[in-house]
Amino acid sequence: MEKGQLLYEGKAKRLYATDKQGILWVEYKDSATAFNGEKKEEITGKGILNNKITSLIFTKLQEAGIASHFVKQLSDHEQLVQSVSIIPLEVVVRNITAGSMAKRLGIEEGVAISRPVVEFYLKDDELGDPLITDDHVDMLKLATAEEVAELKQKAREINQVLIGFFKEIGVDLVDFKIEFGRDSNGQILLADEISPDTCRLWDMETKQKLDKDVFRRNLGNLTEAYELILTRLGGQHS
Amino acid sequence: MEKGQLLYEGKAKRLYATDKQGILWVEYKDSATAFNGEKKEEITGKGILNNKITSLIFTKLQEAGIASHFVKQLSDHEQLVQSVSIIPLEVVVRNITAGSMAKRLGIEEGVAISRPVVEFYLKDDELGDPLITDDHVDMLKLATAEEVAELKQKAREINQVLIGFFKEIGVDLVDFKIEFGRDSNGQILLADEISPDTCRLWDMETKQKLDKDVFRRNLGNLTEAYELILTRLGGQHS
Repeated sequence: MEKGQLLYEGKAKRLYATDKQGILWVEYKDSATAFNGEKKEEITGKGILNNKITSLIFTKLQEAGIASHFVKQLSDHEQLVQSVSIIPLEVVVRNITAGSMAKRLGIEEGVAISRPVVEFYLKDDELGDPLITDDHVDMLKLATAEEVAELKQKAREINQVLIGFFKEIGVDLVDFKIEFGRDSNGQILLADEISPDTCRLWDMETKQKLDKDVFRRNLGNLTEAYELILTRLGGQHS
Repeated sequence: MEKGQLLYEGKAKRLYATDKQGILWVEYKDSATAFNGEKKEEITGKGILNNKITSLIFTKLQEAGIASHFVKQLSDHEQLVQSVSIIPLEVVVRNITAGSMAKRLGIEEGVAISRPVVEFYLKDDELGDPLITDDHVDMLKLATAEEVAELKQKAREINQVLIGFFKEIGVDLVDFKIEFGRDSNGQILLADEISPDTCRLWDMETKQKLDKDVFRRNLGNLTEAYELILTRLGGQHS
C-alpha cells in the first residue's frame, strides 16, 4: 500500500489517499486542543497513544459486531480506514453527568444518568459545534429520520459494548463522542476515533480522570493517563 | 369573583389567587424585557394590548378545539385562568428561520422551513433558558416520553390553527413560544400567553415586523405594531 496525497488535516489527524480505491491512510498528530481550538499544545507521544488505543477499541468493537471504517493499524501512529462521507454530527453519549451538559443544565458533575443521554452537536468550528435537535437535523437535511433513529440506536449499542470494555479495566465510561460516515453504498459506519481525547474515563476506585480533561483542566500529566488506559486495555506503549 | 393575594410576579404578568378554588387572576404589566431581562423598559399600554390579544387568540383556539387554561377576559389588562402546574419548558415552533435558531445554526433569517421545527428550552433565567433535547427532558424528569410526544403534537396543532388565523389578517407566523401546564387531573393544557411578545409576526406584504423584535432591535414604535395586530384580529384598542 502506498501513501498518496494529503486530503485533509484536522486538529488531531492527517488523512492521506492511498493507491487503493476507497482506502485512506490516517496519521495521528501530537496536537492537543480544547475549547474549540483556543487551548493548544504539542504533546509528544499523544498521537501514538491515540492511534494505538483507537485501533484496539475499534478492533474490539468489530469483534462485538459493530461495523466501522477501521481497516488496520499500520504503525505506531498510523492506521488504514475505509473512506466514508462523514455525517457532520458529533454524536455524544452520556452515562454520568459532566462537562458541557452539566454546565448547560446547571447540574452537578458525577451523577449517574439512569437512561443514557444521546446528543447531536453540529460539527462546525465557527459556530462552536452547537447542540442541535432531531428537528434541526431534519431542517438542515443532515440525515433522514430513519438515519437519525439508526445513529441513536448504534450510539446506544456502542455505549453498551464500551461500558463493558472499560468496566473490565476498572474504568467508568462517563461520556464519549463518536462520528459516523456513509460508505459508497450509503451504509452508516462508525468512523473517526475513540480514545481518551473523545471519551471521559474515570478510574472506578480513585475517580482519577484518565482523559483529555487532564489537559483541559490542567490536572497533571496527560501521557501518563493515556498510557494507563492503553496498558490496561492490553496494549503496549513505546 | 374576588381578587386574592399576589402569588407570583413575572417579567410581564402578576398572578393573584381568587376566592374560587383553582382559578387565578392575571394582571398584564407594561414591562417590556428582552435578552433574558438585560434590556428592559416600561411601555404604557403594552399590558392592555397583550391581554386583549391573548384573550382573543385563546378564545379563537378554544373555538378550534384547543384546550387551554384561559377562562375569560376580565378587564382591559386582566383575565381569569385555570390554575395549572406549569411544565418548565418553553416550547418554540418555527415556520420561518429567525432569531436565536438562525444565529445558533449560522443560517439566514426569513427562509421557509418545510416541516416546522419544534424546540424545547428549559425555563431557567439563571441558565439563560438553554435549548434542550428530549433526552434532557427525560433525564431532568420534566415530562414523561408520552407527555413529550403530546407536547410536540399539541404544539404542531396549535401552529396549524395559528398560521390560519394570522394568514387571514395578512401576517406570517414566523415562530412562537408557548407554555403548557398540568391541571389537577394531570391533563396538559396550553397556558401562559400568545401575543406579539411571544410570537414573531411579519406583515405578508411589507415584511414589517409586528412583534417584540420592534423592541429587541429598536425598530420603531412597539405599541403601534401591537395595535395593528389587535385591530386586524378584530379587537379594539382603548
